Amino acid sequence: MSKFWNELVQKLDPYVPGEQPKDKKYVKLNTNENPYPPSPKVVKAIKQAVNEQLRLYPDPNADELRKTAAEHFQLDPEQIFVGNGSDEVLAFSFMSFFSAENPVAFADITYSFYKVYANLCSLSPKIIPLNEDFSLPVKAFCEPNGGVVIPNPNAPTGRGVSLSEVKEILEANKDHVVIIDEAYIDFGGESVIPFINDYPNLLVIRTLSKYSSLAGIRVGYALGQKELIDGLNRVKNSFNSYTIDRLALAGAKAAIDDDAYYQEMAKKIVTTREQTIERLQNIGFTVVPSQSNFIFASHTEVDAEVIFHELRDHGVLVRYFNQPRISNHLRITIGTDEEMDKLIDALKLILKK
Amino acid sequence: MSKFWNELVQKLDPYVPGEQPKDKKYVKLNTNENPYPPSPKVVKAIKQAVNEQLRLYPDPNADELRKTAAEHFQLDPEQIFVGNGSDEVLAFSFMSFFSAENPVAFADITYSFYKVYANLCSLSPKIIPLNEDFSLPVKAFCEPNGGVVIPNPNAPTGRGVSLSEVKEILEANKDHVVIIDEAYIDFGGESVIPFINDYPNLLVIRTLSKYSSLAGIRVGYALGQKELIDGLNRVKNSFNSYTIDRLALAGAKAAIDDDAYYQEMAKKIVTTREQTIERLQNIGFTVVPSQSNFIFASHTEVDAEVIFHELRDHGVLVRYFNQPRISNHLRITIGTDEEMDKLIDALKLILKK
Repeated sequence: MSKFWNELVQKLDPYVPGEQPKDKKYVKLNTNENPYPPSPKVVKAIKQAVNEQLRLYPDPNADELRKTAAEHFQLDPEQIFVGNGSDEVLAFSFMSFFSAENPVAFADITYSFYKVYANLCSLSPKIIPLNEDFSLPVKAFCEPNGGVVIPNPNAPTGRGVSLSEVKEILEANKDHVVIIDEAYIDFGGESVIPFINDYPNLLVIRTLSKYSSLAGIRVGYALGQKELIDGLNRVKNSFNSYTIDRLALAGAKAAIDDDAYYQEMAKKIVTTREQTIERLQNIGFTVVPSQSNFIFASHTEVDAEVIFHELRDHGVLVRYFNQPRISNHLRITIGTDEEMDKLIDALKLILKK
Repeated sequence: MSKFWNELVQKLDPYVPGEQPKDKKYVKLNTNENPYPPSPKVVKAIKQAVNEQLRLYPDPNADELRKTAAEHFQLDPEQIFVGNGSDEVLAFSFMSFFSAENPVAFADITYSFYKVYANLCSLSPKIIPLNEDFSLPVKAFCEPNGGVVIPNPNAPTGRGVSLSEVKEILEANKDHVVIIDEAYIDFGGESVIPFINDYPNLLVIRTLSKYSSLAGIRVGYALGQKELIDGLNRVKNSFNSYTIDRLALAGAKAAIDDDAYYQEMAKKIVTTREQTIERLQNIGFTVVPSQSNFIFASHTEVDAEVIFHELRDHGVLVRYFNQPRISNHLRITIGTDEEMDKLIDALKLILKK
């Protein structure tokens, strides 16, 4: 605490990201990064952009990238907003569309940054408990809300929501913005992007950090009707004109252009995921059905926290959340087959199987 | 306007950055970019970082970069905060240290983003008119304020403030944060960084966009005592964990390490600036004394707005602000000697000299 901090800073409860270890080399299954490298075309495009032009500001409106994304998603460039990672896009969205008088709704078990954004924006959110099996209580999200935020699939559970469920929520919340956070959609979920032209209240948020193997360059975007995008631009341009650097712009454009490469990688991850689920079940784990590049698992006999620490000692990092209802679960990112072998070997040692 | 925008978004008045033209090639003297390329060592360091590791998140705490900057400025790494350009650092500072009850003070003629930040944070700033010659009315900044923001040298005037003047303001505002925005300090100003250990209320803000020729990669930082830096980190970690990408981290570190290169470039810019001032005076301009990489000039006979538009037609972009007190001035970035020749040639044609 400091006398120089204003009231806002004093009451904040910042997000704590998954560990980025520096002490030794781990099998890193704790921050849902893609185990495969970015497309060679992306690497080439970024390298080409490393030149004398770096002395110049980037395009503050990311016109070329938005044009490429618009073609890819069959939208208009004015329906696309680009930010410095989807976390920034989410922060701007909370700043733009929700208000203290009318609580925004999200689940009790979901991306834990939502609560942090609500705090940053002095909002008291309406926290809706997920069902026992971590599925979404759709009816509760259809009651009067001041906005809705749902990741599809959800994090950290990996469970998806169906298109008809999202539609029901969109229909019931016509006067407020419904954010569908599709950070992990490309690993088996169904995107609601085709609903955008029918629902002015729908904002879809995406990231290049997972599917596109580009967590290192920070690009996320929001897709929605023009008036929502205009709102985001008003906040962004009151905060920082140039949020995306020249290299990130070049890499992101190349990534969208080389979707074929990423589809292949996503297929491999899904195959590894299904094999890993079976292997975990064979050694006593219960696994939540996943449409994501991670799985959420709980052991029938040994505490998640114990396994978490022992895995770390064995050189394997996974994510453990010491929170009500999920304190006996581990979130495990899907790595390469080789990394999953190491995970399973370590687990067998720990569980003496 | 949209029914989905909250009250904040509706009342915002976003910043408008200088034009990044796409229609043709201009002599671009409108956004204070450095005319010289980044150091070859910087380009090399960034190229080396374009690799498979881009699939992984960057270090959210920028530890290595902060360590390098700390050594350079003879501070502790805990006294350094890194952001996605100094605009982001300024936004976080406004969010952290100022409050509506106690107005933050800044000049009427200054970096126009300050007013935008104040608006974003729902603050009513205390606007202090500069003296007639655009020098800082130091006494007015020593009255009771809820914080102070001063660029040194000022933008868009280029005028500097002396160390003793800053000290006076720091002494008079011991209970509130005094931000000295040193974006342009390396072109002839005197930095207040040596005051940091004596003044817990001092926050110095820097950028790599100007002196380091890296506007294209977006890195800025704040330097101050640990409790101020902690406050900024609380806001940043409630907004976006990973604000600086891997390539920007690598480039920024290399830029700080190769200061000798940049000192040379800054010297060239200062020489060109002094020559340009003389040449402008010879064709009827009055020029504000500049410690920056730009100059603020007014013609004795022809309106600035007329010159601005005609320069554009001649392929030369400068910055014109249609604002009280400065609507007859032009802000002209110092380019290469060749670019300045083109500026002067165009001006001679326009002014028929």
